[in-house]
Order: sequence, then structure tokens, then C-alpha cells
Amino acid sequence: MPEAPTERARVHRLPERAAYDRETIEAILDEALICHVAWTDGDGRARALPTIHARVGDTLYLHGSRAARAWRAVAGGAEVCVVATIVDALVLARSAFHHSMNYRSVVLYGHGREVTDADELVTAARAITHHVLPGREAEARMPTAEEFKQTILFAIPIAEASAKVRTGPPKDDAADLELPIWAGLVPLETSGGPPAPSPDLLQGIAVPAHVAQPRRP
Amino acid sequence: MPEAPTERARVHRLPERAAYDRETIEAILDEALICHVAWTDGDGRARALPTIHARVGDTLYLHGSRAARAWRAVAGGAEVCVVATIVDALVLARSAFHHSMNYRSVVLYGHGREVTDADELVTAARAITHHVLPGREAEARMPTAEEFKQTILFAIPIAEASAKVRTGPPKDDAADLELPIWAGLVPLETSGGPPAPSPDLLQGIAVPAHVAQPRRP
Repeated sequence: MPEAPTERARVHRLPERAAYDRETIEAILDEALICHVAWTDGDGRARALPTIHARVGDTLYLHGSRAARAWRAVAGGAEVCVVATIVDALVLARSAFHHSMNYRSVVLYGHGREVTDADELVTAARAITHHVLPGREAEARMPTAEEFKQTILFAIPIAEASAKVRTGPPKDDAADLELPIWAGLVPLETSGGPPAPSPDLLQGIAVPAHVAQPRRP
Repeated sequence: MPEAPTERARVHRLPERAAYDRETIEAILDEALICHVAWTDGDGRARALPTIHARVGDTLYLHGSRAARAWRAVAGGAEVCVVATIVDALVLARSAFHHSMNYRSVVLYGHGREVTDADELVTAARAITHHVLPGREAEARMPTAEEFKQTILFAIPIAEASAKVRTGPPKDDAADLELPIWAGLVPLETSGGPPAPSPDLLQGIAVPAHVAQPRRP
């Protein structure tokens, strides 16, 4: 079993839920539609926001507007903490104390390297479009040079990362097992509803397969 | 329209998506199953993790294990940034650049006041159990004094908060509207699957209504 890459990335609380292998970490990053990015601002205060991401090999790409304060901070060298979380089920125990969730999460620390290479910009833009909806990257018009100028893309090495995973039924105390209270899991599933065409869509354009049968989530 | 409570809480990027009214902020906090909590550690580095929360009036409750480093930091006075995010739809534009998501998010800054009052502990525990699944708080065994000792509960005033909301179809550039590319929304819905009873469930306990027809999400 791989060990924690750094002391900071080691899971201290409930270490039996920790995983440090690349396969587990990559699968969670790929499945999580969005992530949350935290950084410390100039006043030393923590800030965070939701954003989308995409993984290519051992690199995580984040993108945003060049005008946003958050990304200016990251471009200025602020380290980020990226968290991607998938909730799989509500875990309903007899006791409120043992209520939990089945989840899979990744925490990744790193510095964002601003992507400037023309080929890598295209790679990252395609990966992010694919991450939102696989197949979309082959259909959507890729960014122009002017659009790339308005966008900022960061590459973060997937190195200082850990995963945490809870699976299985609730774990009540032995003394509670005789209580006449239902216990178990409520699985949570996210699915795509019927596509809603844009009001300004050209006539005669059918819903493409990658939208009608989304492979995400 | 209410204004931003502080400069830091003001939405700078795409301010037309901002909302500062209590009703919008409360609805997002109530609907979001989990939140992400960011704080700055002793080294000045940003950290974040997913957790569950519950709102009671103008207070947000967070809870965790007393043994966890994160909550020790918050108990020690570290300010937190709490982000709750709901993704409503994939926004598929003709251009990759204008791809987006319809989402509702809240960012809340504050210091956690550790809950120690016996009545407030029960209020917070009930609220968090209700937040996970409405009705569950009337069924689950509430915490014992010993269990409360192992748990740490924080109250954060919902004061320095902002919401950000995107709705509606994709907004492509005029020049792209003639492209023969499907554009529109893919709504995302999270639903509860069939409940899975715990293997050690007592015989003869039926699935209760709050589990069979969950009012969350």
C-alpha cells in the first residue's frame, strides 16, 4: 500500500479510510464534477470557491477568468488546497452520533503553474470540456487566441495528495443494535435530466448522442 | 436589494450573479447536503475538507470529531471560510469558452464559537441529523453526554456571507449562433435510491416513511 507523500497529506482522523494510491486518487478526481479550491489571501485568511477541473495524467488543470481575484492570487504564488468530494450514500445509524455518509474525497496541495504553452492550452481546454461532458470536446468550438487571453489555466502536479473513502453499512455501538430503529444506507445518485435546447438554437439540430446519453455523471 | 456585508464578501467576478439577501443564502445552505470548510493552518497554508452542516435561524452549525486537527484549529481561533455549492445543470454552449454550469453557491466567513451549552448541543445535534434527512432527528437516538464529549460543535453567525447564482441557457457570442452545434442545458438531479437495510438490522423493522420517501435532496 502506498504511504502518504508528506506528513501534511497524511490522513490523521480515521486513517483506516485513507488511500494514497494513484488509481484511487485519479478515479475520484475524474468522477467529481467540480472541486473546491482553497487558498490563503494576503491577509492570511482562508478563502475558497467552487470550480471545475480536469485531470491529464498526473496533472490537474484548473481554469478561471483572468479577471478573478482568486486566480490572481494563485498566479501570484499562493499555494492551493484542492478538494474533490463525491457523496455516495447517507449512512443512517440507530444513534445520531454514528450517522455518517459514504463518500470518496481527495485533498491535493500544490502550487499552480500558469499554462502558457499553446499546445498545452489546447490540451487543458479539451480536457476540461471533456470533464464536463465526455464527447463535448469533439463538438464545441475550441477557444480562440483572444479567448485564451481572457482565461487563466493552471497546472498542479498530483503529487501531495490523499484520498479518503468510507463504504459499507452504519456501525452502531453494540448496545444500540437492539433498538427498534431502522438503520441502513440511502444511496445517492446524480443523473442528467432531459436536455433543454437553447432558445436560440438553430432549427434542425438534433440532440447529439453525447448529450442524450451522457456518460457523466 | 441587500448589499454585500463586507468588502471581502462582495462578489467581484460576474457581480450580476451575486445575491446578499438572507432568503437566498439560507435556501442554499439548507439544500446543500455538504459544505467545504477552509482554514489557514499554523504555517499560513490553506487547508480544506468536506463536512456536513445545518442552519438554525442565523447560525450555521458545523460538527466534527474532537480528535481532528481541523477542528482543533478552528477551536483555537482560526477563521473559516465555508462554501456550500449546488450544481443544477451543465451549460453547453457552442464555444468551449462559454461552457458553464448553472449553480447556486454560498461563501461564508466567520469564527467558530464552540458550543458548550447543553440545550444548544441538543439543538445543534438535532439540526444536523435533520439536515442529513428530515424526520431522522425524531427517530435516531440522540447523543449521550459521553458522545457529546467526543464531538465538537461550532456555531458560526451567518453574517459575512454572499451567494452566487447562475441560471438560464448558454450565452454564446453572436458570431457563434449560426454554428451547427447543439447548445442547451443538461439538468442534474440527485435522488435517493432504494434504501439498503443494515445487515445487523433487527427483524421486523419496516423502512420508515422518512427513509422510503426522503424529503432530501
